[in-house]
Amino acid sequence: MESKLLPGERIDEIGFGGLKLIQKPEEFCYGIDAVLLADFAKIKKGGTAVDLGTGTAVIPLILSRKTEADRIVGVEIQKDAFDRAQRSVSMNALSDRIKLLHVDVKDLLNLLEPESFDVVVSNPPYNEKGGAIENNCPAQKIARHETTAKLEDFIRAAERLLKDRGEFCLVHRPSRLVDIIFYCRKYRLEPKEICFVHPRQGRSANIVLLRCVKNGGPELRFLDPLYVYESDGEYTNEIKKIYQKET
Amino acid sequence: MESKLLPGERIDEIGFGGLKLIQKPEEFCYGIDAVLLADFAKIKKGGTAVDLGTGTAVIPLILSRKTEADRIVGVEIQKDAFDRAQRSVSMNALSDRIKLLHVDVKDLLNLLEPESFDVVVSNPPYNEKGGAIENNCPAQKIARHETTAKLEDFIRAAERLLKDRGEFCLVHRPSRLVDIIFYCRKYRLEPKEICFVHPRQGRSANIVLLRCVKNGGPELRFLDPLYVYESDGEYTNEIKKIYQKET
Repeated sequence: MESKLLPGERIDEIGFGGLKLIQKPEEFCYGIDAVLLADFAKIKKGGTAVDLGTGTAVIPLILSRKTEADRIVGVEIQKDAFDRAQRSVSMNALSDRIKLLHVDVKDLLNLLEPESFDVVVSNPPYNEKGGAIENNCPAQKIARHETTAKLEDFIRAAERLLKDRGEFCLVHRPSRLVDIIFYCRKYRLEPKEICFVHPRQGRSANIVLLRCVKNGGPELRFLDPLYVYESDGEYTNEIKKIYQKET
Repeated sequence: MESKLLPGERIDEIGFGGLKLIQKPEEFCYGIDAVLLADFAKIKKGGTAVDLGTGTAVIPLILSRKTEADRIVGVEIQKDAFDRAQRSVSMNALSDRIKLLHVDVKDLLNLLEPESFDVVVSNPPYNEKGGAIENNCPAQKIARHETTAKLEDFIRAAERLLKDRGEFCLVHRPSRLVDIIFYCRKYRLEPKEICFVHPRQGRSANIVLLRCVKNGGPELRFLDPLYVYESDGEYTNEIKKIYQKET
């Protein structure tokens, strides 16, 4: 299926069995965080998932390849990103499995049935409002900063959407871990597994992956750390595997 | 000064400039956790500190060597451990700097002035009540399980004792990190620095050190991990340094 591109957009071949993604590089391109999260989240065959703050829908697209999920809903507040995501989903002929909603996560519960999903994933804005130098590009600002919904809004929405024992998988910055853990516990999404991702061995982690279980018992398991690069600048084998792995 | 030993007790030379410690091995012997915590906690010259659940007073004793703290208060609920701690402090001629209180951390605020301490440290019981196989020895049970005060009681007491911007330093198991972070945030002891301690490279962390600042702003810094053993079973150089370091 052909897709019209708007000024500044391009189509990227992103692998995972021939996925194509429309991106507008001056606004936002997906990063390794999205790929790691899509690999970290496990969705059972026939299961359902929601991606909060889906952007270009890169996570639902990769999840469609890495899992046998029946239905994946991507939620995005930015109209331009939402439109781009719609066209990417059509271009990959995945409209039967991936549904997109143009709505604020705070208003989501009017559109999706509460307590009905197996998995919620999110790669939310990393920086608190005013917590870092803000960007002058409005689209980048919303994607990177908590200008609209706050971390707490994402976590509250996840809790409302998940079934009992459903899983919430999040990728974020380690420096925000206190906020993340505090709000997950507050909304009964008990953190059960944590994985720190380091740029390379000997460097501090700069990404954290967290798996929470709704109404789970308290006990946090530390997974082996992930290292992104070898000392020669190549991806490590574990990262190469994550970039290749399909169902 | 000579000290009478009770049945089952012995005097251990524990280093740190000739410290002696009375222990009753069948009940409890201090571990590396206490040493790591005493090294992790920084107390300014002339500063004051409280150790919640001090046991044999090993942490105040090491702190007296590693810092120039003016006054260190050790709090212990178990009468036998408290008596042993008293004799150890006298034996090391440290009664002018180390004061011990035989009291439950929940009743502490009747005895110590609130918001008056620079630092609170704690190596509290690691296991939740009923959360692990309990021990039949009552003294071991109190030292290792939350039979009396709960983690939340320790954290609440720390908050009450600390001055604004005072530091709470805690050693615990990574599996309890969610509880720890949740209660620290709840009681305005903001986690600011975290250090994971691994038995050796390539193994998961089994100890976590956390530094919180009362009323601090939210941002958690990850310190370089500590490794306890080399592959040949020797202590690593960083651990040797911690065992040797005095003021």
